[in-house]
Amino acid sequence: MSLDGTYDDDNIFAKILRGEIPCHRVFEDDVALAFMDLFPQSPGHVLVLPKTPARNLFELDDAGLQALIVRVKNVAAGVRAALQPDGVIVTQFNGAPAGQTVFHLHFHIIPRYEGADLAGHGRAGKADDVRLAEQAKQIAAAISA
Amino acid sequence: MSLDGTYDDDNIFAKILRGEIPCHRVFEDDVALAFMDLFPQSPGHVLVLPKTPARNLFELDDAGLQALIVRVKNVAAGVRAALQPDGVIVTQFNGAPAGQTVFHLHFHIIPRYEGADLAGHGRAGKADDVRLAEQAKQIAAAISA
Repeated sequence: MSLDGTYDDDNIFAKILRGEIPCHRVFEDDVALAFMDLFPQSPGHVLVLPKTPARNLFELDDAGLQALIVRVKNVAAGVRAALQPDGVIVTQFNGAPAGQTVFHLHFHIIPRYEGADLAGHGRAGKADDVRLAEQAKQIAAAISA
Repeated sequence: MSLDGTYDDDNIFAKILRGEIPCHRVFEDDVALAFMDLFPQSPGHVLVLPKTPARNLFELDDAGLQALIVRVKNVAAGVRAALQPDGVIVTQFNGAPAGQTVFHLHFHIIPRYEGADLAGHGRAGKADDVRLAEQAKQIAAAISA
């Protein structure tokens, strides 16, 4: 999938946004949904996506992006408060050659812990659901409204 | 450097913002400055930083972040238009364990080209100044105000 193309209403994040597929939710309002990545590169890896259909950064208008980035920051602050990582990566891939695998715009929030390497995305295997649920609860509790 | 700490007025980006050190500028307004990364992970690697002193994402207030992210998007769109990469990574590191090496908040815009691997940041060596100047000119021309 290149940067050009049409939004696919049946992408997995669209299904999650419609509630057709469950997620370990950490935050939701009228602008954004945030949930645990099932294949975390690091414990506490969260995804934040806009509710607006947009395949990538270039397809979200300025107002939508401005609303979204504040949610990204607040969720990242929640991850930081809940899990106390030593660092936090915020990253966002546009197009398959950039590493994008689901074509609904999303920001990755990836905690970094001193001395712990990152797993390749999707290469570490699916995380344990019980653990993800616990992390989601911890992070959700730490997000200030 | 952990996530906590004090802003150092003598960090290299502060010096660039004050004009004490030159850069290959691609964009500047009252909110942000964008210039070519001297150690590009990929041809066309650009950094976008706020003019406000902030060590990381957590230290920039919402209004400042909202102003900044629109510049990030516009500069990314300029990189895309000028260099026609197959994908674009937008990424931002908070704290040394996350990969941050200069402690003034900055977003990386990293073009991806089909079949070309990324260089490790800073590991590919310093780019040729003449080439960086050409890329900066091309990208600057492609950024819509």
